[in-house]
Amino acid sequence: DFLRALDEVHPLFGVSEEDLERAVEGGIIHFSPHIDKILKNGRDFVNQVRSNTTPLLSVLLHGPRGSGKTALAARIAMQSEYPFIRLVRPVDMVGMNEIQKIQHLSKIFTDAYKSPCNALVLDNIELMVDWVPVGPRFSSAVLAAIKGMMENKPPKGRPLLILATTSERTVLQQLQLNFMAQIAVPNVQTQQEIAHIMQDSGAFSAPDVQRAVGEIEQTTGGQRINVGVAKVLLGIQTAMQDEDRPGRFAEVISEAVAENSA
Amino acid sequence: DFLRALDEVHPLFGVSEEDLERAVEGGIIHFSPHIDKILKNGRDFVNQVRSNTTPLLSVLLHGPRGSGKTALAARIAMQSEYPFIRLVRPVDMVGMNEIQKIQHLSKIFTDAYKSPCNALVLDNIELMVDWVPVGPRFSSAVLAAIKGMMENKPPKGRPLLILATTSERTVLQQLQLNFMAQIAVPNVQTQQEIAHIMQDSGAFSAPDVQRAVGEIEQTTGGQRINVGVAKVLLGIQTAMQDEDRPGRFAEVISEAVAENSA
Amino acid sequence: DFLRALDEVHPLFGVSEEDLERAVEGGIIHFSPHIDKILKNGRDFVNQVRSNTTPLLSVLLHGPRGSGKTALAARIAMQSEYPFIRLVRPVDMVGMNEIQKIQHLSKIFTDAYKSPCNALVLDNIELMVDWVPVGPRFSSAVLAAIKGMMENKPPKGRPLLILATTSERTVLQQLQLNFMAQIAVPNVQTQQEIAHIMQDSGAFSAPDVQRAVGEIEQTTGGQRINVGVAKVLLGIQTAMQDEDRPGRFAEVISEAVAENSA
Amino acid sequence: DFLRALDEVHPLFGVSEEDLERAVEGGIIHFSPHIDKILKNGRDFVNQVRSNTTPLLSVLLHGPRGSGKTALAARIAMQSEYPFIRLVRPVDMVGMNEIQKIQHLSKIFTDAYKSPCNALVLDNIELMVDWVPVGPRFSSAVLAAIKGMMENKPPKGRPLLILATTSERTVLQQLQLNFMAQIAVPNVQTQQEIAHIMQDSGAFSAPDVQRAVGEIEQTTGGQRINVGVAKVLLGIQTAMQDEDRPGRFAEVISEAVAENSA
Amino acid sequence: DFLRALDEVHPLFGVSEEDLERAVEGGIIHFSPHIDKILKNGRDFVNQVRSNTTPLLSVLLHGPRGSGKTALAARIAMQSEYPFIRLVRPVDMVGMNEIQKIQHLSKIFTDAYKSPCNALVLDNIELMVDWVPVGPRFSSAVLAAIKGMMENKPPKGRPLLILATTSERTVLQQLQLNFMAQIAVPNVQTQQEIAHIMQDSGAFSAPDVQRAVGEIEQTTGGQRINVGVAKVLLGIQTAMQDEDRPGRFAEVISEAVAENSA
Amino acid sequence: DFLRALDEVHPLFGVSEEDLERAVEGGIIHFSPHIDKILKNGRDFVNQVRSNTTPLLSVLLHGPRGSGKTALAARIAMQSEYPFIRLVRPVDMVGMNEIQKIQHLSKIFTDAYKSPCNALVLDNIELMVDWVPVGPRFSSAVLAAIKGMMENKPPKGRPLLILATTSERTVLQQLQLNFMAQIAVPNVQTQQEIAHIMQDSGAFSAPDVQRAVGEIEQTTGGQRINVGVAKVLLGIQTAMQDEDRPGRFAEVISEAVAENSA
Ligand SMILES: Nc1ncnc2c1ncn2[C@@H]1O[C@H](COP(=O)(O)OP(=O)(O)OP(=O)(O)O)[C@@H](O)[C@H]1O
Ligand SMILES: Nc1ncnc2c1ncn2[C@@H]1O[C@H](COP(=O)(O)OP(=O)(O)OP(=O)(O)O)[C@@H](O)[C@H]1O
Ligand SMILES: Nc1ncnc2c1ncn2[C@@H]1O[C@H](COP(=O)(O)OP(=O)(O)OP(=O)(O)O)[C@@H](O)[C@H]1O
Ligand SMILES: Nc1ncnc2c1ncn2[C@@H]1O[C@H](COP(=O)(O)OP(=O)(O)OP(=O)(O)O)[C@@H](O)[C@H]1O
Ligand SMILES: Nc1ncnc2c1ncn2[C@@H]1O[C@H](COP(=O)(O)OP(=O)(O)OP(=O)(O)O)[C@@H](O)[C@H]1O
Ligand SMILES: Nc1ncnc2c1ncn2[C@@H]1O[C@H](COP(=O)(O)OP(=O)(O)OP(=O)(O)O)[C@@H](O)[C@H]1O
Ligand SMILES: [Mg+2]
Ligand SMILES: [Mg+2]
Ligand SMILES: [Mg+2]
Ligand SMILES: [Mg+2]
Ligand SMILES: [Mg+2]
Ligand SMILES: [Mg+2]
Repeated sequence: DFLRALDEVHPLFGVSEEDLERAVEGGIIHFSPHIDKILKNGRDFVNQVRSNTTPLLSVLLHGPRGSGKTALAARIAMQSEYPFIRLVRPVDMVGMNEIQKIQHLSKIFTDAYKSPCNALVLDNIELMVDWVPVGPRFSSAVLAAIKGMMENKPPKGRPLLILATTSERTVLQQLQLNFMAQIAVPNVQTQQEIAHIMQDSGAFSAPDVQRAVGEIEQTTGGQRINVGVAKVLLGIQTAMQDEDRPGRFAEVISEAVAENSA
Repeated sequence: DFLRALDEVHPLFGVSEEDLERAVEGGIIHFSPHIDKILKNGRDFVNQVRSNTTPLLSVLLHGPRGSGKTALAARIAMQSEYPFIRLVRPVDMVGMNEIQKIQHLSKIFTDAYKSPCNALVLDNIELMVDWVPVGPRFSSAVLAAIKGMMENKPPKGRPLLILATTSERTVLQQLQLNFMAQIAVPNVQTQQEIAHIMQDSGAFSAPDVQRAVGEIEQTTGGQRINVGVAKVLLGIQTAMQDEDRPGRFAEVISEAVAENSA
Repeated sequence: DFLRALDEVHPLFGVSEEDLERAVEGGIIHFSPHIDKILKNGRDFVNQVRSNTTPLLSVLLHGPRGSGKTALAARIAMQSEYPFIRLVRPVDMVGMNEIQKIQHLSKIFTDAYKSPCNALVLDNIELMVDWVPVGPRFSSAVLAAIKGMMENKPPKGRPLLILATTSERTVLQQLQLNFMAQIAVPNVQTQQEIAHIMQDSGAFSAPDVQRAVGEIEQTTGGQRINVGVAKVLLGIQTAMQDEDRPGRFAEVISEAVAENSA
Repeated sequence: DFLRALDEVHPLFGVSEEDLERAVEGGIIHFSPHIDKILKNGRDFVNQVRSNTTPLLSVLLHGPRGSGKTALAARIAMQSEYPFIRLVRPVDMVGMNEIQKIQHLSKIFTDAYKSPCNALVLDNIELMVDWVPVGPRFSSAVLAAIKGMMENKPPKGRPLLILATTSERTVLQQLQLNFMAQIAVPNVQTQQEIAHIMQDSGAFSAPDVQRAVGEIEQTTGGQRINVGVAKVLLGIQTAMQDEDRPGRFAEVISEAVAENSA
Repeated sequence: DFLRALDEVHPLFGVSEEDLERAVEGGIIHFSPHIDKILKNGRDFVNQVRSNTTPLLSVLLHGPRGSGKTALAARIAMQSEYPFIRLVRPVDMVGMNEIQKIQHLSKIFTDAYKSPCNALVLDNIELMVDWVPVGPRFSSAVLAAIKGMMENKPPKGRPLLILATTSERTVLQQLQLNFMAQIAVPNVQTQQEIAHIMQDSGAFSAPDVQRAVGEIEQTTGGQRINVGVAKVLLGIQTAMQDEDRPGRFAEVISEAVAENSA
Repeated sequence: DFLRALDEVHPLFGVSEEDLERAVEGGIIHFSPHIDKILKNGRDFVNQVRSNTTPLLSVLLHGPRGSGKTALAARIAMQSEYPFIRLVRPVDMVGMNEIQKIQHLSKIFTDAYKSPCNALVLDNIELMVDWVPVGPRFSSAVLAAIKGMMENKPPKGRPLLILATTSERTVLQQLQLNFMAQIAVPNVQTQQEIAHIMQDSGAFSAPDVQRAVGEIEQTTGGQRINVGVAKVLLGIQTAMQDEDRPGRFAEVISEAVAENSA
């Protein structure tokens, strides 16, 4: 009976407690009121489930690549202080076939039915069903399994909060993978926001921040940034290899601005 | 012989007697005359089968997501007081391959041929064939099996009522999965209906109901609600976390109204 | 050798002698001269094969869903009084994979080569190849097998009559599944025909028949019925649960008329 | 090693010496000069191979369904009096998977490399590759194998004549299944030709022939027949069940004429 | 480990030394300066590899069906007098699945890395990947393997010349199966060229050649021939069965001319 | 457990230390300032990872076929002097199925998590997922695995630099295979650049270089070259077989220019 084989599937790439923490490695910089609102919404959902008002609640964090979805979902989950919290990533299922993936996921859900309060973070949920826009391709078996498990009410007194992230919200709608609530996670949008992050990094003096922002505006011909916080942080790291930090930073961000508006 | 293997397939997620009851966890609120008509129609079909006038009768409950199809089908089945009643859900078949699904279903049908009066609730039947609109994809083997079993006359004196639910009625037509009768389950449509549900919940004072309904009309710019009863009930639960219950409720419902009219 | 495995494939749902009789459970009502002509044509084909003039004859009964194809094919077969008659239904092959279906069918054909006169009824032949219009999908292996077996001349002195039914005649043409002769089975078309069936049922007084037919005309706005005899008989059963039999009957049939003309 | 398994694949439906003879069961009626020309061409190809001028020659007989392709190919092969002649039909491969079909065919070709003069009749070659126009579908593995085997030069002094038949010549072209020579086999086209066949059958008096041909012209509104010889012969058999032979014959043929011109 | 199974895959149809010679069975007739140029180019590539200037060189001979690609590639390979020469044909891989084909090919390449100078003729390379234009279909696994092997530099001092043939050059481009050099092999184009081949055959007198060429021009209404040398040679063989050789030859060639210009 | 089988998958074609060196066999000719800029960018990325500022950095080298991507990626990797460097090529995975490829890749990544500084060169990454534009086809399982592994942060203190090459950048975008940074590798573009390479080869005198460049301009009717450095070097090798080196070189390059502008 292959269902008994459930315990034998081990991920190639480890599932450690570190994972949740590493997802917020860059910290959460409060560069915009959106960030506070997202975290507050998250706390509310955490409470709605903890109070058992709603025994099963699925929430989707959606936004562009690198906008900080995973970090925010991990932070919300960790701050819930539920006895059971688990981050599930596509890489955990590398090397598994469809059946093994379903077993892996169903084991995780079964585990999440055991504590008095449980949270799952399903990271990049579109990749869990192996979504590729070319074709398009996806695993309908894993999709069906996730649908089933996400709608399955947990045992009485074992409420479950599901936090999923995706950069492909419309794809999930087309796949009819539905959520009970949604949270939008936007890119870094304004000069003020990017300046906030630069200052926070401690890698730039105030005049450097000014100069870099000015150069970005000049190069891109506009004030709108629209770059993910992850890319901004990487840009800072790249700039740190360079003697002319603000110049190199402006260069890298300008390229990213151009790419995103293409 | 794989047909002998039939008894060995156990669902990953349990099949308990609770299931039927949990499907009606939110109760049946008689917020509109439609609800009474649906239940009466259901009783008639129950009698038509019990009297053995029609030894095999398949009925489809169709309507938008969250309109209450599963709860109503479960209620009709439970009120039949037939000796054999069974709720079959897609999640029961998570982790099964096509052959195992077919064996699982055929075992259920075989069981449903044994009592002097039998009812099956096939919940979200489009998901049982793994329907996904992208592609589209579906399991033609499971579809063929369901077609065959749904047209197979039960043994003499073992009449069978099949109640299926779907939010994808046209899909079933395209798949040529035919039913002998149909029942439409509409969304909550009018202000009066939503007010009825709010009052029934005991979470709102009469003026609060008035205020919320008014705010919804203002926000959405119209009187039409068109939201499923399930979403309305979840909205109440969310609002209960908030100090301003009617305001938060109006907010949540207005979003749902907008989404459904998009 | 998998061909030796032939005897080991048993259908999940039984193959009993009853099957042919149950297919004509509702009797054959001579509501129109077409019915007589179909039965006469059937008798002629029966004779052509019995006399061994044509050792292999394949005949397709085609028509809308519920028009009575299976009942008529079963009746023709039973009236042939051949020593070997066999009804083959898609449900008999539920749970079999392609290879098992082919083995099942080839065993049936092999059996049908043994008596001095043999008849096979292949019911809903489009479903035997798992036809679904979405895709479209079908089993090309089973299709190829059926093609081969239907063109294979039986051994000398073992003539074989194949009666197949379908509601998807054009599909069979597209699949190049060819028959040597064809019989069309029409719906109940006129008020006179439906009145005939109502009277035959013994469930309506003459004035009731009049009233019902009148109401149908009023509701549908026309005299054309175009509903299968199976649906008409089910309508009578449903109406029998109601105090107002003719009214309820007119309601049910009017809906069916509308649906078929949509 | 699966290639060693070659001898273990036995067809479900027999491969007897009778087969070639049964293919010409209806005889070869010389109803038109085309028939003589086809047979003469066939004899020439037979000689070209026998004389070893051309050690490998593939010839395609193509034409509408029932035009007599199989009968003519079988006749040409039998008249060659080669020491090795073999008829290969799609039904011989029913129940075989792709690998078994390829093994079956490669065994046949290997056998056909052993006599001083060999002929293969590949009947309905488009069905050997499981061609279905819906999709379209076909077995590319079997196709590749047939291509390879048809281009493989036999051992020295073992010339091979391949006679293939098809009613889907353009399909074979699309599949790039190429032949070194081609023979067209037309339908019965003229009144004179159909009259010839009627007379030959001995089932009609001269006036009956006249009457039937006249009625066909009247019903179809033209002199062109365009019906396969197989259908004409079946029409005669059907008519023989009827008291009014010429009338019934005209009826059946007129229908066929209409269907072919649709 | 399936990679150890490498030695166990034996082709159904033999791989003998004869093969290369049989490919040039009809000789190489120098009917046009193109032929000389092709052979000279071939010799140059042979030298470039032998001198180890280029340790890996892949050359594609492309042209219409029957234009002589295989014969020319075989001739170039045989004239190289390299210690290792191997002809690889699609028929050698009949009955192998994708994995076995890849093992077969990788064994051949491994063998071709062992002599101080190696040549492979990959005949009809589009068929090695099971290309069929309907679909289109092809084996992407075999394609990937061939790509990998064709770009893999041989061990030092083991230069390798790959000569591939195809009648589907644009297909190879679409499949991104790239070659380092290319040689075009044209059809017989002019009256002079076809006359050359007829004379060379010794089957026609000079006036016969004249007459045939004249008749072809008359029948086809033009001077352009555009028929492969293989077809011309077959036409001569067919004509030899006939009393009127030039007449029959003109007939056969005219048909081929017409077909190619259709 | 198939994950334990990881060590048993051995590539058909060897993985030797030589591979990285052979990739730069033709050296790196500094024919344009682009080359220097690419190498400098590469050094910067090497340092960014070595300093552990960015513990995971993925860089894509993209450009036309033969533009020198592999040679440059190999050179950057070798110059990093990291303790762990590994070149991964599609040919290393010939003969592996999807699961084996994933195991092979995951073993490589696991190895690359072990040294204090690690670099992987993923050569022709579009071929690792078996991309073929016809269809299009690709292995979504391998794609998903590569995505997962490329986003998986290495263990603390084990920074990893991934250098991938592709000639199908837009394909990777469509497949949503994302990189953190990108480097464009252009073709040889100007007369000056090609002249530089010719001189560097030592195979041409200065006047010969002039003549060849002039002839190319004449033949192609323009000054733009747009040919990959690999093709230019092969052209030199081919020309070396000819008495008229510059003439032959101009011929070969002119053909390449024409082909690329088609
Ligand atoms: N306000 C913030 N919100 C989110 N992340 C932040 C914020 N401030 C800093 N970060 C850091 O930015 C990074 C965001 O990357 P993260 O992987 O979460 O983005 P993502 O949207 O999940 O990306 P992807 O689309 O690739 O999954 C993290 O390292 C995080 O610690
Ligand atoms: N009149 C009513 N009809 C149906 N359900 C009601 C009614 N009143 C209250 N409910 C409650 O509303 C909820 C309806 O949800 P249910 O799951 O049945 O909807 P559904 O249409 O099956 O949704 P889905 O499309 O997701 O399957 C249940 O919790 C039910 O108890
Ligand atoms: N004249 C008649 N012809 C056919 N069936 C009749 C007739 N009179 C009564 N019946 C009854 O009507 C019913 C016809 O149903 P039947 O299943 O044969 O229809 P069908 O066309 O095969 O339907 P389906 O398309 O679903 O296969 C049977 O119960 C049969 O006994
Ligand atoms: N001149 C003729 N040519 C061919 N067949 C003839 C001729 N005269 C009589 N017949 C008979 O007609 C029948 C022709 O049927 P046959 O199966 O050969 O046709 P076909 O073209 O192969 O059909 P299909 O397309 O179904 O394969 C045979 O029974 C044959 O004996
Ligand atoms: N000048 C020539 N070039 C090539 N073949 C020639 C020439 N003269 C005679 N021949 C003969 O013509 C035949 C050419 O057939 P060959 O199979 O090589 O053609 P092909 O292009 O490979 O055909 P296909 O497209 O079917 O693979 C051979 O028998 C060869 O011996
Ligand atoms: N400046 C240079 N840049 C890159 N390669 C160079 C340069 N100068 C000389 N070469 C040589 O040119 C060849 C470039 O071929 P390489 O295989 O790296 O190209 P590629 O772009 O990877 O090709 P492909 O698209 O086929 O993978 C190598 O042999 C390399 O040694
Ligand atoms: Mg993320
Ligand atoms: Mg439901
Ligand atoms: Mg029927
Ligand atoms: Mg035939
Ligand atoms: Mg060839
Ligand atoms: Mg490269």
